[in-house]
Amino acid sequence: MGSSFGKIFRLTTWGESHGPALGVVIEGCPAGLPLGVEDIQTQLDRRRVGQSAVTSPRNEGDRADLLSGVFEGITTGAPISLITYNKDVDSSKYENLRDVFRPGHADYTYWAKYGHRDHRGGGRSSARETWGRVAAGAIARKILATAGVDIFGFTRELGGIAMETFDRDEIERNVVRCPDAAAAARMVAAIEEVKEVKDSLGGIVEVRATGVPVGLGEPTFDKLDALIGQAMMSIPAVKGVELGDGFAVVRSRGSENNDAFVVEDGRVRTATNTAGGTLGGISSGEDIVVRIAVKPTSSVARPQQTVDTNLQPRTIHVEGRHDPSVCPRAVPVAEAMLALVLADLWLRNQAARV
Amino acid sequence: MGSSFGKIFRLTTWGESHGPALGVVIEGCPAGLPLGVEDIQTQLDRRRVGQSAVTSPRNEGDRADLLSGVFEGITTGAPISLITYNKDVDSSKYENLRDVFRPGHADYTYWAKYGHRDHRGGGRSSARETWGRVAAGAIARKILATAGVDIFGFTRELGGIAMETFDRDEIERNVVRCPDAAAAARMVAAIEEVKEVKDSLGGIVEVRATGVPVGLGEPTFDKLDALIGQAMMSIPAVKGVELGDGFAVVRSRGSENNDAFVVEDGRVRTATNTAGGTLGGISSGEDIVVRIAVKPTSSVARPQQTVDTNLQPRTIHVEGRHDPSVCPRAVPVAEAMLALVLADLWLRNQAARV
Amino acid sequence: MGSSFGKIFRLTTWGESHGPALGVVIEGCPAGLPLGVEDIQTQLDRRRVGQSAVTSPRNEGDRADLLSGVFEGITTGAPISLITYNKDVDSSKYENLRDVFRPGHADYTYWAKYGHRDHRGGGRSSARETWGRVAAGAIARKILATAGVDIFGFTRELGGIAMETFDRDEIERNVVRCPDAAAAARMVAAIEEVKEVKDSLGGIVEVRATGVPVGLGEPTFDKLDALIGQAMMSIPAVKGVELGDGFAVVRSRGSENNDAFVVEDGRVRTATNTAGGTLGGISSGEDIVVRIAVKPTSSVARPQQTVDTNLQPRTIHVEGRHDPSVCPRAVPVAEAMLALVLADLWLRNQAARV
Amino acid sequence: MGSSFGKIFRLTTWGESHGPALGVVIEGCPAGLPLGVEDIQTQLDRRRVGQSAVTSPRNEGDRADLLSGVFEGITTGAPISLITYNKDVDSSKYENLRDVFRPGHADYTYWAKYGHRDHRGGGRSSARETWGRVAAGAIARKILATAGVDIFGFTRELGGIAMETFDRDEIERNVVRCPDAAAAARMVAAIEEVKEVKDSLGGIVEVRATGVPVGLGEPTFDKLDALIGQAMMSIPAVKGVELGDGFAVVRSRGSENNDAFVVEDGRVRTATNTAGGTLGGISSGEDIVVRIAVKPTSSVARPQQTVDTNLQPRTIHVEGRHDPSVCPRAVPVAEAMLALVLADLWLRNQAARV
Repeated sequence: MGSSFGKIFRLTTWGESHGPALGVVIEGCPAGLPLGVEDIQTQLDRRRVGQSAVTSPRNEGDRADLLSGVFEGITTGAPISLITYNKDVDSSKYENLRDVFRPGHADYTYWAKYGHRDHRGGGRSSARETWGRVAAGAIARKILATAGVDIFGFTRELGGIAMETFDRDEIERNVVRCPDAAAAARMVAAIEEVKEVKDSLGGIVEVRATGVPVGLGEPTFDKLDALIGQAMMSIPAVKGVELGDGFAVVRSRGSENNDAFVVEDGRVRTATNTAGGTLGGISSGEDIVVRIAVKPTSSVARPQQTVDTNLQPRTIHVEGRHDPSVCPRAVPVAEAMLALVLADLWLRNQAARV
Repeated sequence: MGSSFGKIFRLTTWGESHGPALGVVIEGCPAGLPLGVEDIQTQLDRRRVGQSAVTSPRNEGDRADLLSGVFEGITTGAPISLITYNKDVDSSKYENLRDVFRPGHADYTYWAKYGHRDHRGGGRSSARETWGRVAAGAIARKILATAGVDIFGFTRELGGIAMETFDRDEIERNVVRCPDAAAAARMVAAIEEVKEVKDSLGGIVEVRATGVPVGLGEPTFDKLDALIGQAMMSIPAVKGVELGDGFAVVRSRGSENNDAFVVEDGRVRTATNTAGGTLGGISSGEDIVVRIAVKPTSSVARPQQTVDTNLQPRTIHVEGRHDPSVCPRAVPVAEAMLALVLADLWLRNQAARV
Repeated sequence: MGSSFGKIFRLTTWGESHGPALGVVIEGCPAGLPLGVEDIQTQLDRRRVGQSAVTSPRNEGDRADLLSGVFEGITTGAPISLITYNKDVDSSKYENLRDVFRPGHADYTYWAKYGHRDHRGGGRSSARETWGRVAAGAIARKILATAGVDIFGFTRELGGIAMETFDRDEIERNVVRCPDAAAAARMVAAIEEVKEVKDSLGGIVEVRATGVPVGLGEPTFDKLDALIGQAMMSIPAVKGVELGDGFAVVRSRGSENNDAFVVEDGRVRTATNTAGGTLGGISSGEDIVVRIAVKPTSSVARPQQTVDTNLQPRTIHVEGRHDPSVCPRAVPVAEAMLALVLADLWLRNQAARV
Repeated sequence: MGSSFGKIFRLTTWGESHGPALGVVIEGCPAGLPLGVEDIQTQLDRRRVGQSAVTSPRNEGDRADLLSGVFEGITTGAPISLITYNKDVDSSKYENLRDVFRPGHADYTYWAKYGHRDHRGGGRSSARETWGRVAAGAIARKILATAGVDIFGFTRELGGIAMETFDRDEIERNVVRCPDAAAAARMVAAIEEVKEVKDSLGGIVEVRATGVPVGLGEPTFDKLDALIGQAMMSIPAVKGVELGDGFAVVRSRGSENNDAFVVEDGRVRTATNTAGGTLGGISSGEDIVVRIAVKPTSSVARPQQTVDTNLQPRTIHVEGRHDPSVCPRAVPVAEAMLALVLADLWLRNQAARV
C-alpha cells in the first residue's frame, strides 16, 4: 500500500523486474494538456540502460505504450496508463538467488515482511520500477512547463571526484551526466577502474528547478521540503537528501545563513539562496536546489558473505547486469521525482484561496 | 491541506503561535492502549521552552488537556484530541512585523501564497506547531513500546562542536542534550557567546530507534526511508536528512558499504549497519539511525535588511524570544516524528499478509 | 481511522457524547474567506437539542469556540479548529447500560470491534458527533456561497405523513421542518402520540442545492452521486439515500427517464430533472435533489429484550433524553453533509484543467 | 482524481470504452494469497456482454492479463495489474455523436468539466470501466473467503416485475439473474417487448454478504453503511441505495424496527435483521443486505431531442449496442463493489486494537 505518490497528480507504479510488464497509472492529470507518447519516451530514453559502457548492458527497448487518458493528442482528465513490456528478461541468472539474501538489497526484508517474494532481479524492489516514475515525471514536466518551470539534474560527485565547473550544456554530453567535462572524464575512468575490480561507486546527484512560482508547498507536513524529502528518499540507493546549503548550514550562523530579501524587477527576491528555494516549506520563487547521496551499487560481482532463508551461511556471487555507479541513471529519476512533487503542489495550490 | 501525517495512525495539527490555543487530533490509534495525559505531558515537557538559559524565555505551561478517545485510562479507538491554551502570549512585539518579511522565515511565502496571514509570532509557521507533533508522538511511542521499540535522540554537533564520546545517560543531563558531557559544555559556551553577539548556531541532531521489528516500510513511495525523509524535512529549520552512513556513503565502495548478513541468536542480522536499519525501504531489525541538519535560528536580534508588503526596503530588528540554537528542542520533535512514522508503518504492516 | 471526510476541504471530528468536549478540525479551507464564529453558530443552533417539545430536552449551549485558522475575520488557509464543551452531561442514567447492548444502537458492535468502549450516551457513536459536521458544513456553505450555491433541507415525510404542498418559507417556521404547514401539524401530533406510548417515528428528509456550477464530481469513484451516497449514509439513523427520482426510476422507461437537453438563457439545461442534478457523476447545473430514509429513533423508553457483555439475557429501559423522531434535527445535518461534499468537489475542480 | 477506491486494499481503474485497453491496478493486496488469472476471469465472464439475447451484442473477449503482484500463483504484496485489450471496437457509429449530448449520459457534463473528451462509446464514462471493478472484486472475494465471507447478488425487480420466491440456485440459471424462475421468465418477456419499441427498463438489484465478521466499518465517515453508499452510488445507472429494510423503515416504529439481541450458539445475534447487518456503521455479524435502484438504460434507439456543443437543438438516434436493461450485468458489478468495501474494511480492522 505504498506504490502511489501525490495527492492530486497521483501516480501508482506497478510491475516487477522480471515480470511480463511494468507500468504506471497517473490520476489527476488536468484535461487540456497536449501530450504525445514521444514526450514521455524522450525522458524514458534518458533513464534507459545500455546507453553507454558505464551502465548495465541489459537491453530494454523500454518503449512506452500510452493506453488511456489522452484523446487526439490532448489529455482528457481521465487516468493515464503507460505500460512497457519486459523483453530482454534473463531470469536464469537469478535462480541461484531464490533462497539467499544479497547484501545491500531488499531480499531479506521483503522475505521477512511478505513471506513470499519474486526473487528474480529483485522483483518489486528492483530499480526498474523507476521506469514508471520517469514516465509520470515527463507528464509532470509538461504541466510545469505551462507554469514556466524547468527542471534539470546532474552528477555532482562520483567516486570521490567532485565537479569543479558548471556548464549546463555539458551535462548530457558525457555518460556520467556531469556538467564539468574534465571531472566527467575522471569519473568515467574511475568507473572503468572499479568495474575491473568488481566493485562499485557512489556519488552525489543534484537537481534544480528554475522558474518555480512562489507559493508551492502545503505546511506543515506537505511542505515542499518534506515532499522532496519523501520523493528523494524513495529512490533506490539514496541515503540522504539536502536542500540549498543543506548539511553545510550547521556550521554557519543565522546572520550569514538568512537570505536577505530584496526587490528585483518589481518582485521579491533573495540576495542569496542558501535556503534552496523554500521558506517555511513553501517555494520562494528562487531556484529549488536539491542534492541526494547515492550509495555505491549493492550488486558487486565479487564473492560476498551472507545467509539464506534457512538461516545458513552462504557465499554468493551476484552476477546479473548492473551499473557500476547508479548516479548517471539516477539523474532522470531524481528530476522526475522533483517534477512529480512540484506538479502535485502546483495543482494543490489552485485551491489555496477563494 | 497539509496539516495531517500518517495513513492509519494519522495526526492533524492545528493552531497558531499567538492564537487562543493549539492542538492535535489523532485518528487511528488502536483501542486497548493504556494512556494517561501524563504519558503525553512527559514528552511535552521535554520540548517546552524556558527550560534553561539556552532556550527561549517564553513561559508556556504547555499543559495538555486530553479531550477524547480515552475512557477510564484506555484508548477506545476513537480520535484523540489534545489541546493546550496559549497563555504567555505577547503579540505586541510582533505588531511592527505585520507588513514586513523576516529573513529566513515564512513571512513572505505565506503572504504570497495565502494573501492573508497571521503575522504574530509566525502564526501557523511557528515552531510552536510542533507541540502537537510531540503530543501525538508520545502516543506513538506507547504503541511502539508494545512492539519493543525504543526511540531516543541527541545533539550530535552544535556550532561546529562535534560530540566525541557517547553516553546515553548523559543526554538529558545537559541542556543541549549531547551524550558527551565535555562537548556539551563547549556547546553551551558557544551558545552563550553567540547570544552575546545576537546571532545563532546550527547543528546536527541524531535520532535512533532500537528494537524495531523487521518489516516496517511500504515500498515504493512509503518506504521507511521516504517517510523518514518527509517527517524530518517537515520539521522547521531542517535542511537535510540522512540515514545510516548517509552522505558519507558517496565515498565508499559497494564491497565496503554492503552490510554482510549473519545469523545471531537464531535471527538474521547484519554485521555492520551502514544502512541505518533499512533495506529496500523496509526495516531490517537493526537500529534506525537518522541525522538531520538544523539551520541556525533565523530570528537574530541584530538589524537585518529586508522588504515589506509594499516592496519597499526595510531594516528590521527581530525581538521576540528565541532559542539561540534550535537543536536541543529539536531532539524531542525529531524523536516524535520518527515515532509517528514507525507507529503508522507498524499498524499498516498488520495488513501485509493474509 | 474513519473520522475524516473530504480530500481538499477535509474535516476530522472528535469527541464523545459525555466526554469533556467535542470538536472538529477543518483542513484545506481556502484563505481569504470572511468567517466569524457567528456564521457557524447560526447553523449549530439549528441542530441544537431542546429547541422544542419534539426534540430531546438535553440542554447544551453548543457554543462553538473558534480556535485557529481565522485572523481578523478572514481565513488564513491554516486548519480551522472548533470546539464545544459538554455542559449538561448526566452520565448517571447510563451507568446501568455499561455492560448491556441497547437494540438498534452501536453498543454491541463497538464492544466487539474495539474491546473497550465509552458507554455513556453512546460515546463516540452518539449523534452528538454531528455537531462537528454542522460546524464544518457552515464553513462549506460560505465557500459555496462564493460560487452561488444555496442549500436547504426539510422533512418530507414523518411517521407515515407525507407533505403535500411546498412552501420554502414554511420550513423553519414549524418544529418538524416541513414545508407544508398542514402536514407539519399532523406530524407534530403524531410525534406527541408516539411519545405517549414510549415509541418513535421515522421519516424522509430531503436536501437540495441550487445554483450548483456544472462540473462538480470526480469520476469514477468520487462521483457526486457516490460522495453523496457516502455522506448521507454516514449520518446516524440513515438507512437509504436516493438522488432525483431515486427508487421510482425502476418503474420508468428510458424514454421517459432521460432528461432532454434544451438551451435556456444561452446555457444547456434539461427540460426535466429526474436525474436530480447529476449526469455521469458530475453536476449538470440543475438542482441537486437528495432524499434520505431516517429510521425511527432506536432509544425508546419501553422495556426491550437484549443481552449483556456476559451474553446473558437482559431487559432494559433506555431512559436518557431522546428525540421521538430524528428527522427535524437530521435536516441541518444532511444539509451540512451536502455542503461538505460540494465544497470539496468545487475545490477539487479548480485543478481539473490546465 | 477520483478513479481510486479503498484505503488499504485500493484499486485504480483506467481506460476508455474505445481506447486500446482498459485495466485496473490494485494496491494493498496482502501477500500470501493464492491467486490465478482464472479466479478473476470467472467473475469477468459473469459481467461480460454478449452473454444472452438480453444483453448487448458487443463481443468482447474481456480476457484479463495478470501482469504483476503474483509470483508462482501467490500474491507478493506488490501492486497487481490487470489489463484487457479492447478488440471489438467499432467507433464509427459514434462519429455522429462527437459534438452532441446524449440525454441521460455524461456527454454534456464531461464536456463542460474537462473541455475535451473522448466521445467514442462514452469514453471514460462508459460502463465498460466496471471491468476493472469486477476484476479487483474477484481478488477481494478471495481475501474475504479466507475470513468466511460469501457474496452474491440478484435482480429483485425489473420493469415493474418483482420476484416473489427466492431460490439461490436459480439466480445464475436465467439470463436476468432472478432467484424466482417464474418472475425471471416474465422479466425476459418484458425485455423482449421493450426492445421492440426501442426503449429500456430499470429495476432493483440486491446484494448480500454472509459470514461477515463482526467489527467491519470505521466510524464515523467510513462506516460500513457509508462506504456501501459510496460504492453503490458510483456504479453507472444507480440512483438509490438502501440497507436492510431501507426506505421501508420510515413507516415503522422504533419498537418494531429495533432488532432484539439474542444469544445463539454462544454468540450475539439479532432475532431479526431490519438493519441489514450493520449497527452504528459496523458489521454486526448478520447478513449484509443492500439494494440499489437501477435506472432504465439511457441509450434508447428511438429519436431524442437534445442540443450540441454549439448549443443548437439536435435530434439524435443513439445506435451502438446496448443492454435493454442494465440489471443482469449490474449484479456482478454490485457484488464486486460490496466485496471491495468489505475487503478494505477487513484489512483496516487488523489495526483496530493493540
